[in-house]
Amino acid sequence: MHSGPPDPSDASATPLPPALCVLGLGLIGGSLARAAAPLLPVTGWSPSEATRDAARADGFAVADSVQAALTAAVRDDALVVLASPVTTFRSLLHEVAQHAPRTRLTDVASVKTAVAEEVSQMVPRARYVGGHPMAGTAASGWAAGDPTLFDGAAWVTCLTEDTDLADWSALAALALRLGSRVVPAEAEAHDSAVARISHLPHVLALALAQVGAQGGALALSLAASSFADATRVAGTRPDLVRAMCETNREALVDALDDALGLIGVARGSLASTGSLLKLAEGGHLARGRFEARDTGLEPMTLQGDDLIEQLLAVGAAGGYVTGLAGLGADLRVQARYPIES
Amino acid sequence: MHSGPPDPSDASATPLPPALCVLGLGLIGGSLARAAAPLLPVTGWSPSEATRDAARADGFAVADSVQAALTAAVRDDALVVLASPVTTFRSLLHEVAQHAPRTRLTDVASVKTAVAEEVSQMVPRARYVGGHPMAGTAASGWAAGDPTLFDGAAWVTCLTEDTDLADWSALAALALRLGSRVVPAEAEAHDSAVARISHLPHVLALALAQVGAQGGALALSLAASSFADATRVAGTRPDLVRAMCETNREALVDALDDALGLIGVARGSLASTGSLLKLAEGGHLARGRFEARDTGLEPMTLQGDDLIEQLLAVGAAGGYVTGLAGLGADLRVQARYPIES
Repeated sequence: MHSGPPDPSDASATPLPPALCVLGLGLIGGSLARAAAPLLPVTGWSPSEATRDAARADGFAVADSVQAALTAAVRDDALVVLASPVTTFRSLLHEVAQHAPRTRLTDVASVKTAVAEEVSQMVPRARYVGGHPMAGTAASGWAAGDPTLFDGAAWVTCLTEDTDLADWSALAALALRLGSRVVPAEAEAHDSAVARISHLPHVLALALAQVGAQGGALALSLAASSFADATRVAGTRPDLVRAMCETNREALVDALDDALGLIGVARGSLASTGSLLKLAEGGHLARGRFEARDTGLEPMTLQGDDLIEQLLAVGAAGGYVTGLAGLGADLRVQARYPIES
Repeated sequence: MHSGPPDPSDASATPLPPALCVLGLGLIGGSLARAAAPLLPVTGWSPSEATRDAARADGFAVADSVQAALTAAVRDDALVVLASPVTTFRSLLHEVAQHAPRTRLTDVASVKTAVAEEVSQMVPRARYVGGHPMAGTAASGWAAGDPTLFDGAAWVTCLTEDTDLADWSALAALALRLGSRVVPAEAEAHDSAVARISHLPHVLALALAQVGAQGGALALSLAASSFADATRVAGTRPDLVRAMCETNREALVDALDDALGLIGVARGSLASTGSLLKLAEGGHLARGRFEARDTGLEPMTLQGDDLIEQLLAVGAAGGYVTGLAGLGADLRVQARYPIES
């Protein structure tokens, strides 16, 4: 790695994909279509006729069928984005294998190992780079879409030693143009991380909402911002929560075991000695680490034959990509990375 | 109970306490002093000289010692508010017993049974009405005080069959003037409720913060609003969290057992059958009940010999007090109460 500022003399910007084909127009897909439309040609598709009509009424190009969407994607060399719930991917990939077997392909699912396996089995020649924009709200549906949803969000882009960096850089360039921090990661590392910081929060929120409601009307009437904030994601549609949690089962069980261990020990300590010391101090320190996560990151430029390894090291250390320049063997990546002092 | 709108012809407003003496000038005490100062004479005190100086510099009357504060409170017939951490109450009540044994007295602690027992043992002749404004942030200290903190918040006011309604109504009138919804409750019902909707969220937030941090730099860099919101209260000072959770040990252990049961069953179901159906749907329904808690409340007027029972019924049903009129046997209470249709 080479430390230093981005090279301002660089004239060859890394290109966006020629076009975008968004399959699924819910919160994420609908936001992506809206955000990308000013930058490149976008075609959308949804299995719901009402959603297709709503997107058309808002001025977006929408295909009548997934086959038509994929045929157009092949013609335009579009990046196809699987943006529907992960439980629908198998049937979508069946269509991709038939109509666009060599397409540029990404997805926005919150699990990456299972999707990568499905893609490699069903569409082995697709130019697939898994993605996961860490943006969302409890809302869902086309109408909830927001073109600024990705601004400031982390957008995980998956790399393996076999990834074609041209495919990766096209996806990364798009995510950067939408304002995201691009985080390179291996699929398994991603799944373990999101089990802890996204799927586990859903499980705890769902449990907390129930324990609160079991306290009856008085408990609910006293609930203030700590309860409201901690149960907010329990408002997410249950089928969406199940789709992401159940698909990431192995990593989530590990995270649940860690949580059950900590809570169980705290319960035992409180009941026996009356003290919550260990959890109170450990949790407070951990929250401090979260709040300080963006401090100590320094700009640096990555390039060279081992660029994939360098990119994965940046993501694993809590860093992220901020810019791209050049192409092919000349690809240079600007990143922010924690420099040990 | 008599259903119907408040009586607009009533001319005798229920009076505020003649003065206020706030012992402890942290987030809650400091906010209370600021909010009440336009309404009645307020004297504050803090064990910290720096805090006393800061409050004086902001134009507030501050006693040099707790003895001086209590002597002035007796002279002014002030309502004395214990607004310091609950772990300090024993030493404060020792001073109250010596210098103001018959004072009007309330507190703002998030546990009510233990405090009521301590008060009845140490200051048995005090005119005590336990209180708990359900307002707070992760911030603490005089500088964090905010006169609008109580606006729209629930303010629990404790009642027993022995409560003097004149003492209760003076506290309730103050809370109403500060914009709070006044929720009458028995101390034990309060403690059970807040274990579920306030203390348990702290424990879960502390555990989640640790499980997230155990995922390393990648996990923390991917954490988005669901993790940030769900761990927010882990930023609270550990000694304050311990003070409230450990003082409400029995009710919190019950709530923890309910949570551990739900999470443990969900973990088992996910690991064995791969399904999170039950928790996902149950938690979503429970969150819906929380979001709908304010619907279906209708205004009504309470009065009569069994007013204490009526008030407790309102609080237990998720209702709250919105206004007071009259005095003594003529005390009339406007409330919002869920009317079964």
